[in-house]
Amino acid sequence: MEKKSLYNVTNIEKYLRKVDYITRKKGREILTDFNITVPQFTALQILINQGDMTIGELSQKMSLACSTITDLIDRMEKTDLVERKRDEEDKRVVRVEALPKGYTILEEVLKKRIEFLDSKLTSLSYEEKESLDKGLYCLYQAMKDEQTDK
Amino acid sequence: MEKKSLYNVTNIEKYLRKVDYITRKKGREILTDFNITVPQFTALQILINQGDMTIGELSQKMSLACSTITDLIDRMEKTDLVERKRDEEDKRVVRVEALPKGYTILEEVLKKRIEFLDSKLTSLSYEEKESLDKGLYCLYQAMKDEQTDK
Repeated sequence: MEKKSLYNVTNIEKYLRKVDYITRKKGREILTDFNITVPQFTALQILINQGDMTIGELSQKMSLACSTITDLIDRMEKTDLVERKRDEEDKRVVRVEALPKGYTILEEVLKKRIEFLDSKLTSLSYEEKESLDKGLYCLYQAMKDEQTDK
Repeated sequence: MEKKSLYNVTNIEKYLRKVDYITRKKGREILTDFNITVPQFTALQILINQGDMTIGELSQKMSLACSTITDLIDRMEKTDLVERKRDEEDKRVVRVEALPKGYTILEEVLKKRIEFLDSKLTSLSYEEKESLDKGLYCLYQAMKDEQTDK
């Protein structure tokens, strides 16, 4: 029984990882249509999901040197994805903010991910989709407390 | 019926993304134990899964400038994660190769991911785990051809 349970976990981890890898690869393909690179997209996701932040904060989140992030943000400002904004209260603090074009790209990538997933799910029966949906929901419920612990 | 189907897809995409985000975050936490950063780990994964490659090739895969990758590899050589090797036939070509310590870290991260997933799956019934396993397996089967098309 213990062995059987471990077998399942290994499989679930493997399929989750493989499905995610393929979905991400597909997501990257559409980035080329918008002429943006993966690090630019990662920065965009962080800024939109976690709010405006300084170059230093972003460099920590992305584990890249400040000079690399400065170059990245320079290029993203030129293509209107983000802009630098001075803090209203402390003029010495400069934060990076995502612009509407950045939000649009994030939305488009998400839409394409759903479309891609939908096209792949057509070969599954309604019951298979239902159990995938339920299984993932249960897993997320069991995991979601981890989101706040760091 | 069409609407019901789309509702499922949106949910499946959302839970896949959230579960992956939490699992990745957990994975990153253990990287600190090994004293390596996320980009270092990403480079390691690429080199181990796709084989030895030049700085130029790695910089393309990671969408980062060659100078950034050169710095990254310099630091990884110092900590015995990788080494530069001259091509036997064409001495002008230098490739980066993952070292045993790099393989060990990749294995450890994978093991921790499985342990983490296992600890979260305990709250699911055997039937829920089974349907998650089956659902993910069906999804991976439907997707896996995408792995070879680019």
